[in-house]
Amino acid sequence: MADTNLSAVLFKKGDMRLVERPVPEPGPGEVQLSMRKIGICGSDVHYWVSGSIGPFVVKDPMLLGHECSGVVSKLGQGVTHLKVGDRVAIEPGVPCRRCELCKGGRYNLCPDVFFLATPPDSGALARYHVHAADFCYKLPDNVSFEEGALIEPLSVGIHACRRANVSMGKKVLVCGSGPIGLSAVVSARAMGASEVIVTDISEERLALARKMGATKSLTIATKDPAEAAQQVRDILGAMPDCAVEASGANFSVHMAIRALKPGSAFAVVGHGPNEIQVPIVEAIAHEIDIRGSFRYMNTWPAAIEMLTSGAINVKPMISHYFTLEQTLDAFEMAKSGKGVKVIIDCEKSAA
Amino acid sequence: MADTNLSAVLFKKGDMRLVERPVPEPGPGEVQLSMRKIGICGSDVHYWVSGSIGPFVVKDPMLLGHECSGVVSKLGQGVTHLKVGDRVAIEPGVPCRRCELCKGGRYNLCPDVFFLATPPDSGALARYHVHAADFCYKLPDNVSFEEGALIEPLSVGIHACRRANVSMGKKVLVCGSGPIGLSAVVSARAMGASEVIVTDISEERLALARKMGATKSLTIATKDPAEAAQQVRDILGAMPDCAVEASGANFSVHMAIRALKPGSAFAVVGHGPNEIQVPIVEAIAHEIDIRGSFRYMNTWPAAIEMLTSGAINVKPMISHYFTLEQTLDAFEMAKSGKGVKVIIDCEKSAA
Amino acid sequence: MADTNLSAVLFKKGDMRLVERPVPEPGPGEVQLSMRKIGICGSDVHYWVSGSIGPFVVKDPMLLGHECSGVVSKLGQGVTHLKVGDRVAIEPGVPCRRCELCKGGRYNLCPDVFFLATPPDSGALARYHVHAADFCYKLPDNVSFEEGALIEPLSVGIHACRRANVSMGKKVLVCGSGPIGLSAVVSARAMGASEVIVTDISEERLALARKMGATKSLTIATKDPAEAAQQVRDILGAMPDCAVEASGANFSVHMAIRALKPGSAFAVVGHGPNEIQVPIVEAIAHEIDIRGSFRYMNTWPAAIEMLTSGAINVKPMISHYFTLEQTLDAFEMAKSGKGVKVIIDCEKSAA
Amino acid sequence: MADTNLSAVLFKKGDMRLVERPVPEPGPGEVQLSMRKIGICGSDVHYWVSGSIGPFVVKDPMLLGHECSGVVSKLGQGVTHLKVGDRVAIEPGVPCRRCELCKGGRYNLCPDVFFLATPPDSGALARYHVHAADFCYKLPDNVSFEEGALIEPLSVGIHACRRANVSMGKKVLVCGSGPIGLSAVVSARAMGASEVIVTDISEERLALARKMGATKSLTIATKDPAEAAQQVRDILGAMPDCAVEASGANFSVHMAIRALKPGSAFAVVGHGPNEIQVPIVEAIAHEIDIRGSFRYMNTWPAAIEMLTSGAINVKPMISHYFTLEQTLDAFEMAKSGKGVKVIIDCEKSAA
Repeated sequence: MADTNLSAVLFKKGDMRLVERPVPEPGPGEVQLSMRKIGICGSDVHYWVSGSIGPFVVKDPMLLGHECSGVVSKLGQGVTHLKVGDRVAIEPGVPCRRCELCKGGRYNLCPDVFFLATPPDSGALARYHVHAADFCYKLPDNVSFEEGALIEPLSVGIHACRRANVSMGKKVLVCGSGPIGLSAVVSARAMGASEVIVTDISEERLALARKMGATKSLTIATKDPAEAAQQVRDILGAMPDCAVEASGANFSVHMAIRALKPGSAFAVVGHGPNEIQVPIVEAIAHEIDIRGSFRYMNTWPAAIEMLTSGAINVKPMISHYFTLEQTLDAFEMAKSGKGVKVIIDCEKSAA
Repeated sequence: MADTNLSAVLFKKGDMRLVERPVPEPGPGEVQLSMRKIGICGSDVHYWVSGSIGPFVVKDPMLLGHECSGVVSKLGQGVTHLKVGDRVAIEPGVPCRRCELCKGGRYNLCPDVFFLATPPDSGALARYHVHAADFCYKLPDNVSFEEGALIEPLSVGIHACRRANVSMGKKVLVCGSGPIGLSAVVSARAMGASEVIVTDISEERLALARKMGATKSLTIATKDPAEAAQQVRDILGAMPDCAVEASGANFSVHMAIRALKPGSAFAVVGHGPNEIQVPIVEAIAHEIDIRGSFRYMNTWPAAIEMLTSGAINVKPMISHYFTLEQTLDAFEMAKSGKGVKVIIDCEKSAA
Repeated sequence: MADTNLSAVLFKKGDMRLVERPVPEPGPGEVQLSMRKIGICGSDVHYWVSGSIGPFVVKDPMLLGHECSGVVSKLGQGVTHLKVGDRVAIEPGVPCRRCELCKGGRYNLCPDVFFLATPPDSGALARYHVHAADFCYKLPDNVSFEEGALIEPLSVGIHACRRANVSMGKKVLVCGSGPIGLSAVVSARAMGASEVIVTDISEERLALARKMGATKSLTIATKDPAEAAQQVRDILGAMPDCAVEASGANFSVHMAIRALKPGSAFAVVGHGPNEIQVPIVEAIAHEIDIRGSFRYMNTWPAAIEMLTSGAINVKPMISHYFTLEQTLDAFEMAKSGKGVKVIIDCEKSAA
Repeated sequence: MADTNLSAVLFKKGDMRLVERPVPEPGPGEVQLSMRKIGICGSDVHYWVSGSIGPFVVKDPMLLGHECSGVVSKLGQGVTHLKVGDRVAIEPGVPCRRCELCKGGRYNLCPDVFFLATPPDSGALARYHVHAADFCYKLPDNVSFEEGALIEPLSVGIHACRRANVSMGKKVLVCGSGPIGLSAVVSARAMGASEVIVTDISEERLALARKMGATKSLTIATKDPAEAAQQVRDILGAMPDCAVEASGANFSVHMAIRALKPGSAFAVVGHGPNEIQVPIVEAIAHEIDIRGSFRYMNTWPAAIEMLTSGAINVKPMISHYFTLEQTLDAFEMAKSGKGVKVIIDCEKSAA
């Protein structure tokens, strides 16, 4: 294949450039993918702007991009469940498969995971990418590449809702109406939640949440989490049965613990400050389970089922499209905070 | 209250007559209910025709009827969560509240439960009935009395789906398309099942299942459960992730165990012969959990949520209406096997 | 029965006096108990000294005492599982039996619970006490009244260990070596924990923990929870699989979250300040479940089994004995912090 | 290494011979093991005598032996958690690590597992064996090679007890007192079961069960499972809370379902006839979970912890020792049914 592999290389903080690189070859158990759509995540922007997130520091040139879909273009040795031409969504984390956590069914916590676009692991923002075949999931014809790419943020929402014990007939509180909060909203509804109340400081973001399935919303105006908790209960006419924190705000953690029904699970997925204040006596007396929710595991198959049936629709999240050649414009747009989800098309235009 | 209490008394096997009885008064923690709609269950017909089901034998005059709704007409001492005039659905089993099973959260297994229309416990087929207030659930205005009555069979389906670990994106096999099978179908869909395949020997019943939300169906024509299991997998394009047995047929148990994905839960709710053959080596090698599913617990609140939102619709199950005065005609119709669910209106007609 | 009922009445903060009161009669479902042994809890001392704990304020005269055992002296109506003369341990909380939490199997979270010695609910520090019969558990002959009384603090430890997912072969961190920490130690060992490391600032308390079954201990000397977490890992030669926080110190919460293996459950039972700092980013990235653990449910039967078999021994916790007439001395001793568990004998001396 | 690799090759049904083979070299992620002790399992004898078990047929020459321990003699590429000279116990099944079941935490159900001594997969009965390094577990000095080998049958018992929800203070019924039943007995006790009643038709086997920790036993004399169930309840003075079926007898399944407390889990591990009769109406009415229990997953670390601490002692199971050269004698002894567990020493004698 004489093709070239245009790639958006982040050389160092603030320095991302499009360069041609060799097309990578798949090893055993891997597939080569002709990339299609990639969503830009807040973490991508952060690495580009700041060069690090916590302990993860950009030291060597790498690619960004971990919300992605593509077409299988070459099979590595031993791959049988896919064939060339298959349209696939890509799960970005490939665990070690050997540690106690992998064997125990919690591969998202594997300490030796390879994870796209998390330094030192490179991402997929290029014409071609090679990935573990069993973390590539075939898409049915009626699921688009955009939707396939958005399974990644959707999975964060699904995993959080599972951690929060969302189930049929439950009333769910979702704190924060960004991409993860919206993913939690559509996941909770698809799991049968009868009410989903979303909170945010932006009425505009809440409007999108309602459009995507939230049954109630609360624009946070007070500085007092106990007051906000009471507002949540008043609007619902009940205490929420479960909650997902997707705002990263300490305020939301307080509000949720004070609003929740005793015995509830509270999944915390939003990253904010390293340490937060928690009303622990209330959490103890009501046996609230405060559960960290990290990435996802075993979500792609369920997500594809729900996108296929139409029970989940993530398309309203998409606000802008760019080509791979326009990657820097795409990142500028994502950085600006306008819109919700920016999509980059990695395919070479026909022209 | 000078009112009288017309009641359909089953004096003995085959001898049910309408008689006037005193209006019962509510004790502490109870409510008096002006009954509205009552569905006839197969067990009601069985007690009427045969006088017994297993160890439960009709010895003294009693009422039938345990799928019911009504209006609160008088409050017993200490009842505060309801008021006169409230429209309610009735959960028919009132457990002892004191045994290990009640305290452990499985009150449906309480050995000292009072259960409507299960001898020696009398039922509710009358103008007035007195019931434990905390097992009466307020209905919103947009849920009809018919729907309120049908929460009972729906609850059997919800409980079975919970026992079968139904959740978002799962593929579910439901064996049998009678009222319980149909209840499992609507429950599974409301829990997010992406596919529900229903099996039955009657294409007519399967048509109703599809109308109510089943995505696939299989008319059982073979005598070989392994062949039927393969047909289930072929139609789904996959192994089912969970199964509910609601036919009472040994064939279905075989078929389901052979069809299910390893590691699945299989809820068995249908009553047939006391003993059945089970392919145990297959069940062991695939770690299929064969879980008895008995009645229900904690289902009314979730059911009301789903009926209120419209996510579950049980009305297609209703085939016939009768008045309390026409009770014998209603039982003849239910016995005939025509239609699915026969409803009796217990209210005195205005005329 | 011409007997009188000597009772230790807390009239108001700091004012507890022994007075004669009428012997209470059991109502339906209750038993009258001739009290035997009562342990003094930190909360008892707190109500006596301060008159309140959080929202619970001593307004009217009441008794203290909720860790207790007795002998059945009279049966209320309908009580059949006990007989006069039975030796029993008493579970102090009697829930409403009617709310969603009671029906859902989490009666410890019932908002309408009656709980001994928690204002406005009176306690059991008297010659006679009347209690719900189903919360009185028959003791075998080889379990003493002292042990029966100590099932209450032991239950806090059992419940916390259940919440922390302690099971066979696990390595458990217990923070704090007071009565609850010690209860967690013996519970964890009885559940099959292969290692239990206990932390405290008092080497004396740790010595008792080791005597009662802790396999390792750490005297906290550093102010840095991350350093202490590393010490825990070093001493264990591994990350702990589960943790129970029984010290009430914010430091311990930090230390445990930093020490635990990813995917662990962390039961927090110790009450300290209303709000604490939590290293949330670490808790999220490692999906640590921070689970409030409140009182207990369904622990008495298992506790009695373990005391009967000798697999759990709580007697080393007992440091002092007093008679009911010496109640004030007993409270002074408990207040002094000398010893671990002070026991009051409520029985009239033979002399 | 000029060493040779004496191996007990099963050429075909009934034809096992010792031959020299090349010493195998470890590939990436593997280790070469100098084998020490191997226990003979009933399945080994069965393949030797009958040439097949169900769908598994001996077609090509293969080795038997899957209960084994050894010493690491060479490291494959990338192996870092072991070093040459480490004493290890071997988990015989190596799953594909890529399928839905592996990723979901149930690798014991992987359809593509490599499993020692299960045709067409060869076993370990030789001087040297190569195995996936992450399925070799380092043994502490105080755990012998015999014990290391017996972790395999012990694991079957641990897994079954986990499936049966055994926990502290529970009363457990174990049906069958062969190696798996005995493994369930010691596992249940180590998990905190307060009572373990074992049933068998052999008083001799029951005597060993009592020696190894069973608190009660019942020699089955009746042909009526309901009568035996009542005997179990009478001896325990209670209904068992959990049960493990390790006899392979249909009788035991009946007995257990009839004896168990409502709401219990019943792990079925014993293989007998392909199909059995199940009292399904009783299983439904009592919501007994009939759970197939297949091999094990994630048991070696916990087993090693318990052997190290002495909380589990499997040595009483060992009845006979042979050398590798005496393999045929060892198999004859195992076939004879005398004794319980026959051990083969694979090490070259010093002489």
